[in-house]
Amino acid sequence: AQKITVGNYLLTRLAQLGVTSMFGLPGDFNLGFLDLVEDHPTIDWIGNCNELNAAYAADGYARVKEHSIGVVTTTFGVGELSATNGIAGAFSEMVPVLHLVGVPSTVQQKARPILHHTLGDGRYDAYVKAASQFSVYQAIIMNKNDAPIQIDRALTECITLARPVYMTLPTDIVYQEIGSQRLLTPLSRSPPLNDPATEDFVIELIHQRIKEAEGDVVVLVDACVIRHDVKQEVFDLLKKTGFPVYAAPMGKSSVDENYSRYGGIYVGSITHPDIKGKVENAKLLLSIGSLASDFNTGNFTYRISTRRQIELHSDHTKVQFARFEGIGMKRMLPKLTERLKEFYPIGSNIEVPPFIKQLPKQDTPVISHLWFWPRLSFFFKEEDVIVTETGTANFGILDIPLPAKSILVSQILWGSIGWSVGSCLGAALAARDINMGRVILFVGDGSLQLTVQELSPMIRKGLRPIIFVLNNKGYSIERYIHGKHRKYNDISEWNWTSLLKVLGDLDGTLSRTYTVRTKKEVSDLLDNPTFANADKIQLVEVIMDALDAPRALEVQAELTGKGNAYAGK
Amino acid sequence: AQKITVGNYLLTRLAQLGVTSMFGLPGDFNLGFLDLVEDHPTIDWIGNCNELNAAYAADGYARVKEHSIGVVTTTFGVGELSATNGIAGAFSEMVPVLHLVGVPSTVQQKARPILHHTLGDGRYDAYVKAASQFSVYQAIIMNKNDAPIQIDRALTECITLARPVYMTLPTDIVYQEIGSQRLLTPLSRSPPLNDPATEDFVIELIHQRIKEAEGDVVVLVDACVIRHDVKQEVFDLLKKTGFPVYAAPMGKSSVDENYSRYGGIYVGSITHPDIKGKVENAKLLLSIGSLASDFNTGNFTYRISTRRQIELHSDHTKVQFARFEGIGMKRMLPKLTERLKEFYPIGSNIEVPPFIKQLPKQDTPVISHLWFWPRLSFFFKEEDVIVTETGTANFGILDIPLPAKSILVSQILWGSIGWSVGSCLGAALAARDINMGRVILFVGDGSLQLTVQELSPMIRKGLRPIIFVLNNKGYSIERYIHGKHRKYNDISEWNWTSLLKVLGDLDGTLSRTYTVRTKKEVSDLLDNPTFANADKIQLVEVIMDALDAPRALEVQAELTGKGNAYAGK
Ligand SMILES: Cc1ncc(C[n+]2csc(CCOP(=O)(O)OP(=O)(O)O)c2C)c(N)n1
Ligand SMILES: Cc1ncc(C[n+]2csc(CCOP(=O)(O)OP(=O)(O)O)c2C)c(N)n1
Ligand SMILES: [Mg+2]
Ligand SMILES: [Mg+2]
Repeated sequence: AQKITVGNYLLTRLAQLGVTSMFGLPGDFNLGFLDLVEDHPTIDWIGNCNELNAAYAADGYARVKEHSIGVVTTTFGVGELSATNGIAGAFSEMVPVLHLVGVPSTVQQKARPILHHTLGDGRYDAYVKAASQFSVYQAIIMNKNDAPIQIDRALTECITLARPVYMTLPTDIVYQEIGSQRLLTPLSRSPPLNDPATEDFVIELIHQRIKEAEGDVVVLVDACVIRHDVKQEVFDLLKKTGFPVYAAPMGKSSVDENYSRYGGIYVGSITHPDIKGKVENAKLLLSIGSLASDFNTGNFTYRISTRRQIELHSDHTKVQFARFEGIGMKRMLPKLTERLKEFYPIGSNIEVPPFIKQLPKQDTPVISHLWFWPRLSFFFKEEDVIVTETGTANFGILDIPLPAKSILVSQILWGSIGWSVGSCLGAALAARDINMGRVILFVGDGSLQLTVQELSPMIRKGLRPIIFVLNNKGYSIERYIHGKHRKYNDISEWNWTSLLKVLGDLDGTLSRTYTVRTKKEVSDLLDNPTFANADKIQLVEVIMDALDAPRALEVQAELTGKGNAYAGK
Repeated sequence: AQKITVGNYLLTRLAQLGVTSMFGLPGDFNLGFLDLVEDHPTIDWIGNCNELNAAYAADGYARVKEHSIGVVTTTFGVGELSATNGIAGAFSEMVPVLHLVGVPSTVQQKARPILHHTLGDGRYDAYVKAASQFSVYQAIIMNKNDAPIQIDRALTECITLARPVYMTLPTDIVYQEIGSQRLLTPLSRSPPLNDPATEDFVIELIHQRIKEAEGDVVVLVDACVIRHDVKQEVFDLLKKTGFPVYAAPMGKSSVDENYSRYGGIYVGSITHPDIKGKVENAKLLLSIGSLASDFNTGNFTYRISTRRQIELHSDHTKVQFARFEGIGMKRMLPKLTERLKEFYPIGSNIEVPPFIKQLPKQDTPVISHLWFWPRLSFFFKEEDVIVTETGTANFGILDIPLPAKSILVSQILWGSIGWSVGSCLGAALAARDINMGRVILFVGDGSLQLTVQELSPMIRKGLRPIIFVLNNKGYSIERYIHGKHRKYNDISEWNWTSLLKVLGDLDGTLSRTYTVRTKKEVSDLLDNPTFANADKIQLVEVIMDALDAPRALEVQAELTGKGNAYAGK
């Protein structure tokens, strides 16, 4: 049988999963493996500026490149722990990421000397223990024979659960040879089968409930429609039943927002009044892939009793109060669609408020959130990849419809600022790979300061994102929550428009930079075909008021502030 | 009795410990506490650019400000996990740091809703579990009455063990009132008492061994002399016994390097031949505060048998093979000095090779490591604080003597690149506080890319470090270990000399920047009084060869490369 090194076995598996970019930084415990990566015909090494940013990039890559995974490679201790928050974010948001760590040789791991990057007390298991909090599987490779089994198991968990896995690769294992037989069988990404009798029962039950509700059903799509890969199945159900559909913030862009039966965003008490009534007054809510976090539900203010809810999840189904364990939506959805299509005549007649692009009239020149986001909706095109950062941007984007086939990448549950910059790098590489269109990032000035260096690999790799930096002199979202005029919500002013030149475009030929201060300047820029073409990396500094915010944020911030009651104050 | 809020109780304790700067970033779970910090009369909030850098800054602050601690404040999940590597580094290197995390209210912690910054699965204990790997105590404050006890306990562990502690402060506890009585009793930093009978026995044993060795003793000082605060006690012993003294790399600057009995650095097989013989041929080695890590010992190549060693540690003593638990050096040293001073006539006659500044002659204009570091030794002054980064810098600094009262700050065991930049910020704030002189940072181009944004708070806070950026086109230290010409060891070229202007010195009045390409340019700059005066923040780009390195690194890299044997390759 053919022989292959353990390192190349892993790379072959990754290539089979469609991985074309690998993120991370070198370190003496992974250099031998990086030789293999650098020499690999289809996998490109993206040297990041630091490990947290690399983890963010892997996350962004996995979000855009469906059916693939993100990979971040770090070195023992210093490197891997720097990535902790990025991996935890992928866990929280359900993004399939492999965290591969180059570690000391198995000999050293057994003898446990005080090597550099150790805690100095011989605890060689401390990093794994920490990592196990934020990954669904830990492959601690200690000999070549177990390596392929552990690699396959880890990658399978990663793709089926859509969560990070952790893997350690010791220096002395990388080049050991093993049989390549297993590689002939691709890894399976299919979710487990549903028990047929239970599934039939559940489908009938749902059918019955909908019949009792006289077909007065509204569908609410959420995060897991994207994360657990049922966008197509859901769209089929929508078209065949005609049911109206709304999205939770984390489900935005999972359904084509130009689809005539799509009504916009439902987010509990924060919802636009036109939409709120439609969702909350339906006799039955069919919720698909929901993720009921505070920011995703208007601080848990859904006004829909359990009695009126049917929930489809990746690994279970709920019909009113009854829970059906192991009945996952991926396999059930096509059958459900078949069973429910009889409701089309009723479903397709339920009224849906139009969710369309509309530019509000505002006479002041200053760039307000109220105007900015609708204006952008006229700029977006099909197949754009739009990345938004925690802060005002994440809320602003909710107010406007996005074009068909566009992808929205944001991190509403985890909400780690700075994430969008690394994520944009990964998203842009993935987008190039799968022939998506432009990549457009909206990042706050405060957030950009956390991870600014990751603009550098974008330039080096010839990527061409459009980066809108919302310059509002600091942490505006925080000002809305607490400390409106506090100094801790201020940031240093930077020369934003010089960043690209300093961080890699040394002669200024690779990038373009702009500052816009008025609505007119925004409009002129967006209408400029050279700009809109996005043939180079571009950065736009957008001057906004420190105390301006999208409507949804104002309400959410107040609710959050109350939750964080500083009792006694 | 006087009442005080829990938040202010903590701040009062920190002020008592001499804390004047607090590092971190705001987040909605710590904003209420930050009000108290901002309003505090003696503690200044240093808003960092990201949490890892903030942890590094707290570490640097604690290293320079003896008898105080570093404090980093972050927010739940996203903030705290970003700091993981910085805290782990402080653990490894024994630096007293408090990691204070603003967390959801106790009500929320009990109900465990899917708040933003959670893992989405209700596991509210995951972050503490991870943190417990990298801290000696975790104070999980859940009610006001236990708060003062937990705070005092955590801070006492922090200062006595010189390691990080972790503390969570829920939003609803910050403003609750408690009695302030306990604050009248300052926290004790004294190490536990040594058992008197054992201590007497050990002192006699050491005396006897030295007598048998006919006073042929060499002292080796190491990391824990600095970390466990015995610099003064050690210097007394040295002066009263006359014994020659050498330093391990991590002990550098713990003994005045101009002291006539100081002979330079001992680092196993990598040691300069003149020094190596002197240390290894002594009949007895008195090792104080040793930390036997790979890079600190020339990859474990000490040639000194246990039979010839006496080791003093913070919490135990070893005489040859015998270990005496609980006999700590801080309390024993003064008594030992008294008992050993009779050896002065012999001790002071043992020959010590001179460790003096010497500029090697090299005719080529290019700036070599061989020449650069000695040249710098003529630039350093008393009370300079010198910070060096992992990479060529950490090795270069070993070759030269530093002035009296200077402090060297480096991270040889943990070795996380980028650390020096955050650390320099903290070191500079501490140095200003205790009236030290200039702060001088040596950082590689690769390392600076990880944490570059932390130059920004330096500018905002009016700090005036001199920052030497060693521009050698990438990860030179790695090239020496593996992959000399590999692309993964390259980095993007930046416009280094524009950084300060872009990151805060917008009109260019607050900083100065230079590029030096030749030995003459270096010398001219160092001789320029305006530069040497350091009245503004200054950045010097030093152009060096990609394949040049200090001698010690060349040897160490080869040893490390062998340890990381990529078997089969
Ligand atoms: C890593 C991390 N640190 C801190 C926070 C807390 N936080 C949430 S939003 C925010 C401010 C974001 O400011 P900016 O990017 O300028 O957005 P905007 O001003 O548009 O709201 C901060 C500090 C966080 N979410 N993540
Ligand atoms: C956080 C972290 N990531 C990766 C490494 C591995 N590493 C050690 S030294 C080094 C290169 C440093 O390059 P540079 O700062 O340019 O120093 P030089 O040796 O070139 O002077 C790297 C990547 C590390 N030690 N820490
Ligand atoms: Mg902002
Ligand atoms: Mg370098």
